[in-house]
Amino acid sequence: MNKIYDVAIIGAGPAGMTAGIYASRAQLDYILLEKGFAGGQIINTYEVENYTGFSSISGFDLAQKMQEHLQYLGGSITMAEIKAIRLTENGLKEVETESGSFLAKTLIIATGATARKLGVPGEEQFSGRGVSYCATCDGAFYKDKTTIVIGGGDVAVEDAIYLARMCKKVYIAHRRDEFRAVKNLQTKLLALPNVEVLWFTEAEEIKGNDFVNAISLVQNQTGEKTELAVDGVFIAVGSTPNTEFVGDLVEKDGQGSIITNSKCQTSVDGIYAAGDLRSGSVRQIMAACADAVAAVMDIDKQL
Amino acid sequence: MNKIYDVAIIGAGPAGMTAGIYASRAQLDYILLEKGFAGGQIINTYEVENYTGFSSISGFDLAQKMQEHLQYLGGSITMAEIKAIRLTENGLKEVETESGSFLAKTLIIATGATARKLGVPGEEQFSGRGVSYCATCDGAFYKDKTTIVIGGGDVAVEDAIYLARMCKKVYIAHRRDEFRAVKNLQTKLLALPNVEVLWFTEAEEIKGNDFVNAISLVQNQTGEKTELAVDGVFIAVGSTPNTEFVGDLVEKDGQGSIITNSKCQTSVDGIYAAGDLRSGSVRQIMAACADAVAAVMDIDKQL
Repeated sequence: MNKIYDVAIIGAGPAGMTAGIYASRAQLDYILLEKGFAGGQIINTYEVENYTGFSSISGFDLAQKMQEHLQYLGGSITMAEIKAIRLTENGLKEVETESGSFLAKTLIIATGATARKLGVPGEEQFSGRGVSYCATCDGAFYKDKTTIVIGGGDVAVEDAIYLARMCKKVYIAHRRDEFRAVKNLQTKLLALPNVEVLWFTEAEEIKGNDFVNAISLVQNQTGEKTELAVDGVFIAVGSTPNTEFVGDLVEKDGQGSIITNSKCQTSVDGIYAAGDLRSGSVRQIMAACADAVAAVMDIDKQL
Repeated sequence: MNKIYDVAIIGAGPAGMTAGIYASRAQLDYILLEKGFAGGQIINTYEVENYTGFSSISGFDLAQKMQEHLQYLGGSITMAEIKAIRLTENGLKEVETESGSFLAKTLIIATGATARKLGVPGEEQFSGRGVSYCATCDGAFYKDKTTIVIGGGDVAVEDAIYLARMCKKVYIAHRRDEFRAVKNLQTKLLALPNVEVLWFTEAEEIKGNDFVNAISLVQNQTGEKTELAVDGVFIAVGSTPNTEFVGDLVEKDGQGSIITNSKCQTSVDGIYAAGDLRSGSVRQIMAACADAVAAVMDIDKQL
């Protein structure tokens, strides 16, 4: 409890690991805390083709390369779940975890974001028994089965493309009449013979016995209701910043994302935010990494 | 001349190629223009260990991986030297090159920066004959010889470390009494037995016959002059943004770097700047890439 780090980094996704890489090279005395697996959201990404230099790589493999890079530079990750962060009387940053507290002169919050829930009946009941938030984690369980993806963004369309490789039939239900996903993903999706797009369609209830066997849908223009027999429901309707433990220590926007300037400085001196939890983040891997670069370079100058 | 692209991208360094990668995935109709080799400044970087996911890679190899990535997504680079850019009456962006003009709805300027000169006698005369701005390009010519590096930033210290592997003796002259380079580079440098640091020291004249054989130095605190016998002079005193062809079309800072907001928008609607030529850029590869991501994502929304 007496040791004071130069930097405490919370979260070992692309932003947190990049912060560790830069902090290692700058010979800063830092601790990088992660409660689960290194890699953050990309662990569950089947294929990444927008991280410059890797034409096509699984998110899992990319996460591993990032962790190897960190270790190559002498860095490491400390397993700990964060309970709270606060300022001490001396302006130090205290990170309270389930396995003790850490003190640091500066703090980088890089805990990313988490999948958003639909909030419909059956969703929680069948979670892990037919309801999934990660096609690339769970898709393999649905070989030759029928699934439905809910959502219209990049992840939803990517999930449907992924599932179409193994499933007999894939529905994708979107509440509007056009996807937000990038065009080449849409083109890929619409070329797949076993994918059926349901426009203006929302989930009402997920049904089953032990496992999911159906979903009730409503066409939101006509009010028409249908029930589809499905074996799996993949929910891809966005994500929420993992900033609860931050409380009101730093300024957040209405979504709970942390407000920063271009140097990733938050409203509190010496506290930085990097990655998908930053307000206005484009939620891309390279952007998260670049956030961390900006934060550590600024810390390096400040210390 | 009649064709109107969605985007014209000028420069195929990490920023320009990332813009191409994102534009390809977004199925934008774009042209990516480059006057020399793809890769920009990193081509001349011996070792990159701060691009997350690649523990250690030569800049040349990283540039090649980026170009392969671009090509994997169907992108390509058009060779052309830019003469000027201007707006048409319709608000289109016209890029004038030596091999014709191109019209585009939007423009991303990503031409990077260029090595700065010392401006001392002999520098131009012996350029390519003992004077170099790129240790990783030319260092191999100085095996078992004596060289001097001028500068005190990351690149200068990296250059000295690189040269120490092959040269008999390496001096590094810096006009101040501490380096700006990151600490782990300094530690590496100072541990090398064949490197000698000359503090408060500036170059006055580079001398030789056919090739460099000496450099005149001045100690800027005492005024004391010395002459050192050297075979090569490596100049690493920063860089200048390659923005001359931009004229006053968009707002620049006092250094000629282009002023943008966090979306990389310049003062002119539909013109973006990405990478080292952006005012306030941290001049890191990942930051340049993330600039391009922000620019293309904004363009994708605008078009």
